[in-house]
Amino acid sequence: MIQQIAGGVCAPKGFRANGVHCGIRKNKVKKDLALIVADKRCATACAYTRNLVKGAPILVTKKNVADGYAQAVIVNSGNANTCNANGVEIAEAMCALVERYTGIPKGDVVVASTGVIGQQLSIDPIAAGMEELTKGLGDNSIAAAEAIMTTDTVKKEIAFTFTLGGVPCTIGAIAKGVGMICPNMATLLMFVTTDAAISPAMLQKAVSADVKTSLNMLSVDADTSTNDTLCVMASGLAGNREIVSDGADLRAFRRALHTVTSALCRMLAADGEGATKLIECRVRGAKSQKDANLAAKSVIGSNLVKAAMFGADANWGRVLCALGYSGADLNVDAIDVAFSSAAGSIVVCKDGRGIGFSEEDAKRILSEKEIVIDVSAGGGRYKATAWGCDLTYDYVKINGDYRT
Amino acid sequence: MIQQIAGGVCAPKGFRANGVHCGIRKNKVKKDLALIVADKRCATACAYTRNLVKGAPILVTKKNVADGYAQAVIVNSGNANTCNANGVEIAEAMCALVERYTGIPKGDVVVASTGVIGQQLSIDPIAAGMEELTKGLGDNSIAAAEAIMTTDTVKKEIAFTFTLGGVPCTIGAIAKGVGMICPNMATLLMFVTTDAAISPAMLQKAVSADVKTSLNMLSVDADTSTNDTLCVMASGLAGNREIVSDGADLRAFRRALHTVTSALCRMLAADGEGATKLIECRVRGAKSQKDANLAAKSVIGSNLVKAAMFGADANWGRVLCALGYSGADLNVDAIDVAFSSAAGSIVVCKDGRGIGFSEEDAKRILSEKEIVIDVSAGGGRYKATAWGCDLTYDYVKINGDYRT
Repeated sequence: MIQQIAGGVCAPKGFRANGVHCGIRKNKVKKDLALIVADKRCATACAYTRNLVKGAPILVTKKNVADGYAQAVIVNSGNANTCNANGVEIAEAMCALVERYTGIPKGDVVVASTGVIGQQLSIDPIAAGMEELTKGLGDNSIAAAEAIMTTDTVKKEIAFTFTLGGVPCTIGAIAKGVGMICPNMATLLMFVTTDAAISPAMLQKAVSADVKTSLNMLSVDADTSTNDTLCVMASGLAGNREIVSDGADLRAFRRALHTVTSALCRMLAADGEGATKLIECRVRGAKSQKDANLAAKSVIGSNLVKAAMFGADANWGRVLCALGYSGADLNVDAIDVAFSSAAGSIVVCKDGRGIGFSEEDAKRILSEKEIVIDVSAGGGRYKATAWGCDLTYDYVKINGDYRT
Repeated sequence: MIQQIAGGVCAPKGFRANGVHCGIRKNKVKKDLALIVADKRCATACAYTRNLVKGAPILVTKKNVADGYAQAVIVNSGNANTCNANGVEIAEAMCALVERYTGIPKGDVVVASTGVIGQQLSIDPIAAGMEELTKGLGDNSIAAAEAIMTTDTVKKEIAFTFTLGGVPCTIGAIAKGVGMICPNMATLLMFVTTDAAISPAMLQKAVSADVKTSLNMLSVDADTSTNDTLCVMASGLAGNREIVSDGADLRAFRRALHTVTSALCRMLAADGEGATKLIECRVRGAKSQKDANLAAKSVIGSNLVKAAMFGADANWGRVLCALGYSGADLNVDAIDVAFSSAAGSIVVCKDGRGIGFSEEDAKRILSEKEIVIDVSAGGGRYKATAWGCDLTYDYVKINGDYRT
């Protein structure tokens, strides 16, 4: 039984957080430095961007969590600290500042940065902001969620309770950005905390499996960031018997983790740059998991499908087209397509051919804020869900002049 | 010596063309039916979309040119004749109409359609327009170029002279659309005619090799159409010794063909939907041809690079990012990037790191109509060029409500 509760990364036992404006961003209303600390070292598992160009903070984080443990997360927005000659040095200095102000060893610190690429990041504002940041540590997930936002328009935090062997556990998270495949100025960052007891190896196994059906099925614009980071920290303070092997407890933990990551994926897609709508594509009947994933991802990634959704235009031919070039092995003469939303559901294509439908009904369905594109691909038994958003004037506006 | 001349598909000896409004489109000012006929059967080679969902005309054309010969091309705009139950029947009927009005056997006809997917195409307006269409056949490449346009804003035709074994030959073409990887309503169609004598096998070899460095390096929005068709017809009336094997003549023909296809690719990219700028990415120093192609294509395909170019913003981090996720095997610490145009050239990234540059100069350079992004990827010996365009408000506008 997984139940949503209020809060974010501070909902599980053993975590405090804060966020402040330290001056990396010129806009003083906008927080730009976040810190999450745990009361004890946590089993920690991460997943990173697969872009060959990697942000310097990722290199430092990889080293620091190589032993499977971490105790703090420091994040700045406003600068990605990527493609800079002194990037690693600055990321190391951020970890050292955490040690100086909290006593947590710098080798137990996860560090992340998000913002523009290729502009040197000064350590000065960060150093200047550390005192205020650490003094305010507490039940303050909201401030941390705000401090990691770039072009996000709403902060993203979420928390759930679940049980492991009858013991109540909690999992919470904050996130920002618009996708694992996403704008490079709007790096995906997701920090998940839990008080469940789980070994680093089992946690990494759960995280690596989860991203395949959560973050990797999210796309705003097919641009994979250089700084994407998912970090899951488990304090173990819930008191459950530590998960050290496969079994019912690991499955229960994975369900809880997926509840968090998929809920945040929907929130991230809905807040994609310039987006007015969340687009969810559900593919079923595929011949393999790979085919299902490719098909769903291709539909939500198509600029033409995205623009049609913006215009509430039931142009299902573009869905067929995106399925056809997806790389998935599909029988195109067996594809059915339906659009649905809170306003109803309408079948627009049967066996790869158009069927008569009411354009008026379709318009009404597609005018809602959350649209589902259902694709039945034939008789296979594999399915997949992917999340994206519409393509709007504002996407172009935001990205036509991001740096100025 | 390849020299540009006036004209299009009627410039080579042995070809006539025309285009009319027959009524597939409601707008009477817009021609929607084109015909190209040759005085004799031509060696003919085609290349088609790799989308699994293929327009019905492609199935019929494949069958008709299977023997390596064709004598006429009929094309309609306003309807893609794709994902329709009676699509093949209609495409066959179009070929039969060509036979009835010109005497050219229907099995020697290339047929193509472009427009919206999944709406039945009536043969009636086409049948009604055939008399006017065939009566007006002549040196009328312009009318044919106009009749195949959909959202194109300018017609595309081009012609060149070259020599084979000292004999003067001519090659001409018309095209429409915005990419082999392109909007599905704006199918890429390119029809090339030449009076050179070349065997069907050698012509297919030349065409298949050419698309790798021409049409396949063009992208407006990464949406591969269901109806893309390139068709090259050679009448042999120039009088050169027929090309039947590899050698100097085939190389000369391939150079002439590439001059035509690459020039049209630039014209197509510059007229991409909503585009205000042609973006050319030139990659050199790659470790393999595949790496060079992937890298160049990824840069011109990135929504973020495209939006930055629209805003004349020298956001080179997005170029690095697109190179990093391109799938190419690149040494990211050896990448140099420069932007250039008619207004000058500016290096913005050296060895994968930002270097100081004048934002004012960069703005001036990026405000031109044709932008080149030069990428030096290290010490390899492979290079590639790809063409695209910027991402603009008008792209969203055009595609947010295409069908209405």
